[in-house]
Amino acid sequence: MNYCSSCGEKVSFVVPDGDNRLRYVCTSCQTIHYQNPKIVTGCIAQWQDKILLCKRAIEPKHGLWTLPAGFMENEETNMQGAARETAEEANAQIENMRLFCVFSIAHINQLYTMYRGDLVDGQASPGEESLDVALVTEHEIPWQNIAFHVINETLKRYYQDKKQGEFKIHYGDIIKQSNDSYIVNYF
Amino acid sequence: MNYCSSCGEKVSFVVPDGDNRLRYVCTSCQTIHYQNPKIVTGCIAQWQDKILLCKRAIEPKHGLWTLPAGFMENEETNMQGAARETAEEANAQIENMRLFCVFSIAHINQLYTMYRGDLVDGQASPGEESLDVALVTEHEIPWQNIAFHVINETLKRYYQDKKQGEFKIHYGDIIKQSNDSYIVNYF
Repeated sequence: MNYCSSCGEKVSFVVPDGDNRLRYVCTSCQTIHYQNPKIVTGCIAQWQDKILLCKRAIEPKHGLWTLPAGFMENEETNMQGAARETAEEANAQIENMRLFCVFSIAHINQLYTMYRGDLVDGQASPGEESLDVALVTEHEIPWQNIAFHVINETLKRYYQDKKQGEFKIHYGDIIKQSNDSYIVNYF
Repeated sequence: MNYCSSCGEKVSFVVPDGDNRLRYVCTSCQTIHYQNPKIVTGCIAQWQDKILLCKRAIEPKHGLWTLPAGFMENEETNMQGAARETAEEANAQIENMRLFCVFSIAHINQLYTMYRGDLVDGQASPGEESLDVALVTEHEIPWQNIAFHVINETLKRYYQDKKQGEFKIHYGDIIKQSNDSYIVNYF
């Protein structure tokens, strides 16, 4: 951030009076431009013994597989966002949605919320941001070609719960280690 | 938003190519300035049969009571944010934190996450944004002077769960009606 989005003057990076963090503050109109984490919302769409995966047509992780998910938008609910992303990325409708997990990923300033739900009529096809979509069983999951660690974690917990016959709501922190591996702290 | 925070030129409010929503887009460097919901995170701090409330020293709702909560910051986890807000607003430390509820409030573009936890040593005092703090029993809650509807809902669910002897994770949407009342849809 270089300029004030309100008045167009230069911003400085300082700790405002009464605050304890560095913020971008306009040198002219004094507007404080707060920057906060974003919410990613998505879902596990179930159909018989399968779930829906999307092959990414965009960066990052072009060509790898993921669950339909994306940034929550203003003027929608968290659950509506998850359903919208599933519609956009996989032309798929979801019903009976239930919150499944909430992950903090502090190193990228994101909060992930993932739902599970039933894929209506088993219908899906690639949206603009997907090269392909697939309905896969647990044994068909391409574990080595999943785009993001948070999706690996979500899927792992999903199949653990499924085996135990009860779905819970999971929450925890995904922490990146210096060697590019991850620790996941569940609470 | 009037100006591009990257280059300082004017922005226009248009639907970018390949998108389906109005965004602020720079007329010069083409940067798209996305605007997304913010996360509010806070907690119910328990001490014996009491919980901690804060009397707001700032607008909105100056002078009304609330749970310690505020905007999640970059580079922290959701739970760390809840603990930080409790420290800032009530000089209080919390342990054994557990996720308690997640509310979408689409009309103000916020996602509320509230934890419950134990107040360490029963110690609390007003922080800069609080006029006062109080440890109150259920019967002492000033229901008519609670700052925000989401806090009313959180407290209501908390005491319902407490009576039933089991705390769950609740999630739902808080929808503002035209007559300034609210509907809460739980899932």
